[in-house]
Amino acid sequence: MENHEKYMRMAIELASGGIGFVNPNPLVGAVIVKNGRVIGQGFHERCGELHAERNAFVHCTESAEGADIYVTLEPCCHYGRTSPCTEAIIEHKIKRVFVGSDDPNPKVSGNGINKLRDNGIEVITGVLKHECDSLNEIFFHYISTSMPYVILKYAMTADGKISTFSGKSKWITCEESRKNVHNTRKRVAAIMTGVGTVIADDPMLTCRIENPSNPIRIICDSTLRIPVHSNILATSHDIPTYIATVSDDEEKCDIIRQMGAGIIKTTRKNCRVDLYELMEKLGQMNIDSILVEGGAELAYSALESNIVNKLQVYIAPKIFGGSCAKTAVSGKGVNLPSEAFMLSSPEIKRIGDDILLEYNIKQGMI
Amino acid sequence: MENHEKYMRMAIELASGGIGFVNPNPLVGAVIVKNGRVIGQGFHERCGELHAERNAFVHCTESAEGADIYVTLEPCCHYGRTSPCTEAIIEHKIKRVFVGSDDPNPKVSGNGINKLRDNGIEVITGVLKHECDSLNEIFFHYISTSMPYVILKYAMTADGKISTFSGKSKWITCEESRKNVHNTRKRVAAIMTGVGTVIADDPMLTCRIENPSNPIRIICDSTLRIPVHSNILATSHDIPTYIATVSDDEEKCDIIRQMGAGIIKTTRKNCRVDLYELMEKLGQMNIDSILVEGGAELAYSALESNIVNKLQVYIAPKIFGGSCAKTAVSGKGVNLPSEAFMLSSPEIKRIGDDILLEYNIKQGMI
Repeated sequence: MENHEKYMRMAIELASGGIGFVNPNPLVGAVIVKNGRVIGQGFHERCGELHAERNAFVHCTESAEGADIYVTLEPCCHYGRTSPCTEAIIEHKIKRVFVGSDDPNPKVSGNGINKLRDNGIEVITGVLKHECDSLNEIFFHYISTSMPYVILKYAMTADGKISTFSGKSKWITCEESRKNVHNTRKRVAAIMTGVGTVIADDPMLTCRIENPSNPIRIICDSTLRIPVHSNILATSHDIPTYIATVSDDEEKCDIIRQMGAGIIKTTRKNCRVDLYELMEKLGQMNIDSILVEGGAELAYSALESNIVNKLQVYIAPKIFGGSCAKTAVSGKGVNLPSEAFMLSSPEIKRIGDDILLEYNIKQGMI
Repeated sequence: MENHEKYMRMAIELASGGIGFVNPNPLVGAVIVKNGRVIGQGFHERCGELHAERNAFVHCTESAEGADIYVTLEPCCHYGRTSPCTEAIIEHKIKRVFVGSDDPNPKVSGNGINKLRDNGIEVITGVLKHECDSLNEIFFHYISTSMPYVILKYAMTADGKISTFSGKSKWITCEESRKNVHNTRKRVAAIMTGVGTVIADDPMLTCRIENPSNPIRIICDSTLRIPVHSNILATSHDIPTYIATVSDDEEKCDIIRQMGAGIIKTTRKNCRVDLYELMEKLGQMNIDSILVEGGAELAYSALESNIVNKLQVYIAPKIFGGSCAKTAVSGKGVNLPSEAFMLSSPEIKRIGDDILLEYNIKQGMI
């Protein structure tokens, strides 16, 4: 089994090359091995372009007849933008197919594997399944719910503060942590923040790393307070931007549209944007994933609206104190401890001297 | 080296049997090995009783002549409550001595090792030094500063809350975490809390585990608000208790003394108990370690007074939210992020679904 895992790990590594460019498609990598030699490698590089398997065949250095193929996700068997990968595998006379994840896409879901077996190809499933599955949390969620996979992120001190009593927050976490946020930004289709953050910090919400894929920007702005001179609106012609609102101020809407941003209207929920409805609309727009990086109010609204799938908590090794200092999640809050938003046991990463806790939201999973 | 570490690990395991009973002495374990067989084991069991080495000799199953001894801390060479362990080692004609930690006690500090070498005994130092050192963080701090080693502990949600907006806090962490707090209580000489916690929760502040060693209880009560019917005062005849105050209310002081608790007065600092002075006084009373389990105000005062050595943060996998919910450290707080209380990179433990972060305080170490 050792070599199988080695080649699958290679395929996983390849797959991650597509991060930021394949949404709303899955990340997939493929490795073709013949007589113990890797003769072809490929990954799904960009939405609309070749699937991983076909890319691997294109790059084959010799005939793949009788070879094994390792693919992180069950090969597709339906006609989409490209013809099915199962056909390519059959045509190239592949002997054995090693599969990581099953494809939950109802159009595939086991049919790909059956199609191969019907053609006399041996199929071994579940190779490094856990690792392959974690590659595509976003895809699996989106394909089965049509709702974006929502990551709520905040950075706090070891006493839960996101700013000092005087509102200062630069910086809480270390440089590596802030860089890691940009890696997360690259992974998602969209970043969402509240207009309060836009007014306070005038951010760009871009992805400042090498080879970036600037995600769409979404600003929750119930009453259209966004300043026309904000960095966000000033760059809306270049980076797709949407303002989510419940305002009827058509004049301001027109100004925003002229500056290049779109307007998304939802029904009112407590005089504010209905975040659940907003997610449905964004899902329909092919946005498969959103990183929420707002303030404490937006964090609470997102949790309360039950749209959050994952929580990322960066904790810096420092204490601000302060009974008036802002904390990570505000809003009304729960009355009893038993009413708390429940999280999974976290995954823990060290980033410099900071730590990153990654929780799944239990309520969101019901 | 493998066997040496094996025997030293055995000695460390033995040493921990003294937790809760040796303060302000160090935890020490000793293992005597002859021809590859363990012929004697011992540890320092209780302050005032035999040292680990002598206990190991007492339990020897045969003559220790020519044997090796593994001891977690440099053997003492001064006359205290007992005569020096170096004498016992020399008398028993031990061949080699394996030592874990050096003893920072200025009365010992290398002299124990020199004494042995002068008598022709081979001494090997630094065996599992790191593990042996962590056994005695409290002792090393106390012996070199005469100040108690202070552990500040709090339990919070993943958004930094210690109660809901309505003040409810039972329970935030899981049962295992709460049990772990009792293990920490066992380890220290005293527990300290604020009178606010006494009024709100009426706690016992005892150590509810098997074979407990109830630490001394210290209540910070600047204006002597402690209720005479509180559980703390009702049990002060059985469990040593001190009320630290700046109040001049001699009548209340007398009532408290009659109930069995002591009064410790300090000079006023912002109308409150001067925590640094209080620590000096407690250190003089042979209290080598204190677990601070107060509310958010006491936590801030303790940090501000620069008395904290270690911070224990329990984080439960839940979110309370709430702009009015209490957070772990309050007080005035710092104005700029650069003025924060700085912590080390944390040690991380999983306890059930909770995590425990243990930080050293950098400011406290200057």
